[in-house]
Amino acid sequence: MKEIKKISLIGAGNVATHLAKTFVDAGKEITQVFSRDFHRARELAIKCEAVPVDIISGISQEADLIVISVSDDALVEVVGQLKVGNTLVVHTSGSVSMDVLKPLGENIGVFYPLQTFSKERDIRFNEVPLCLEAGSMGNLELLKTLAISITEKNYFIDSEQRKKLHLAAVFACNYPNYLYSIAEKLLEENGLSFEMMKPLIVETAEKAKAISPSKAQTGPAFRKDKKIIDKHIRMLSDNNDFREVYELLSKKIMGLTSSQ
Amino acid sequence: MKEIKKISLIGAGNVATHLAKTFVDAGKEITQVFSRDFHRARELAIKCEAVPVDIISGISQEADLIVISVSDDALVEVVGQLKVGNTLVVHTSGSVSMDVLKPLGENIGVFYPLQTFSKERDIRFNEVPLCLEAGSMGNLELLKTLAISITEKNYFIDSEQRKKLHLAAVFACNYPNYLYSIAEKLLEENGLSFEMMKPLIVETAEKAKAISPSKAQTGPAFRKDKKIIDKHIRMLSDNNDFREVYELLSKKIMGLTSSQ
Repeated sequence: MKEIKKISLIGAGNVATHLAKTFVDAGKEITQVFSRDFHRARELAIKCEAVPVDIISGISQEADLIVISVSDDALVEVVGQLKVGNTLVVHTSGSVSMDVLKPLGENIGVFYPLQTFSKERDIRFNEVPLCLEAGSMGNLELLKTLAISITEKNYFIDSEQRKKLHLAAVFACNYPNYLYSIAEKLLEENGLSFEMMKPLIVETAEKAKAISPSKAQTGPAFRKDKKIIDKHIRMLSDNNDFREVYELLSKKIMGLTSSQ
Repeated sequence: MKEIKKISLIGAGNVATHLAKTFVDAGKEITQVFSRDFHRARELAIKCEAVPVDIISGISQEADLIVISVSDDALVEVVGQLKVGNTLVVHTSGSVSMDVLKPLGENIGVFYPLQTFSKERDIRFNEVPLCLEAGSMGNLELLKTLAISITEKNYFIDSEQRKKLHLAAVFACNYPNYLYSIAEKLLEENGLSFEMMKPLIVETAEKAKAISPSKAQTGPAFRKDKKIIDKHIRMLSDNNDFREVYELLSKKIMGLTSSQ
């Protein structure tokens, strides 16, 4: 059976970089790396013993898979310039439909890792859920085999579902991080170390793995403890942003029990 | 030097239960357990080989420490009924001033574990920050020695600072959990498993340990990607609560870069 061995990358950002490392660790060969920023292409290419490419038409059609891992906005532009022949090509975006790749032909798909990637942190890819989609069963099978070589968790997710996942991920990742940053600021302002908050943050996340968050809700708003809530709102009187966030979320949480 | 060996507990809820187990593990003796709900007092007393007490006046003054671990509202009532003599007495609340214990005399303090406790989960107490306060240096030293026997992390925190900590904890724990529950609901509604979201939730929390959350912010709102934000808001059109939360948080995050 056909297998994906040679992979080219378009994009050299966080997702591309983490994927490249993971593919190499799984015994795959990264053939070429393209980035609009040639310096970044070269940097990543060196790491994974690939050839850096400085124009997109330089991407060869000899790879088994071309992975486009660029910002959603750049995706359309890349698709407009790319020639892939019969090579299977996927994007890695949570919020963009597979159809965006249709101008490239029939051999298209999506390879979306549901995780937050940053330069500073190593990610153990074997715990990252990979969301797969493809225009044909054959290509889906190919992507699945590739996914299995790097993670235990792969899911077949169509474009509509993937958009919901991406939306849910905003609530599960981006927004909690913003709330952490509010906590951080409040502590700083009061001469307290954010260090103190870390065990609580990690336990809250770990708890969500063990207990359904909708059943694990605690805190003044859930107890409808209006005395504390009013105190907290007064403590936030000098910061409209934090106060508004506190007010809305406490209101929504207080509404939970009455609507259930 | 004096040392705390015998401890009595007033309250048999989550905090009291976790503390009792931790004290016993550290070689302390739990002498008595009081709860308004005698069944719960007995249940906890059996676990830690203590004597359950069904009226608060039955609490003996022979312990080295009395720990009051009840809801904030019940605290004043307990203080009104308790006789402690010269025994050191502490409460475990984040949001209540030490002064609430003043009617009990001079030997008062606070022993506030900054963590979320639930029946279903074991907590490794050696990673829990303990916030200590006392009315005298001698009692503070006593509490510190007790704290050191169960955790590496102890902090001297006065009542004003503790209230700020508690407020920050709402942002770092209760509110993220509510956002997790929104993610959970969105996935359920679309036939997707919340399981998929767990690695992302844990990595987001772990990342906050390594990188300042204010520097780790990502997502559509942080990129000011209005196209995606509008799409997401439309996807939430059938749920006013979720939509309002999405709108407010995306607005606040978009404001971050412009105000910095």
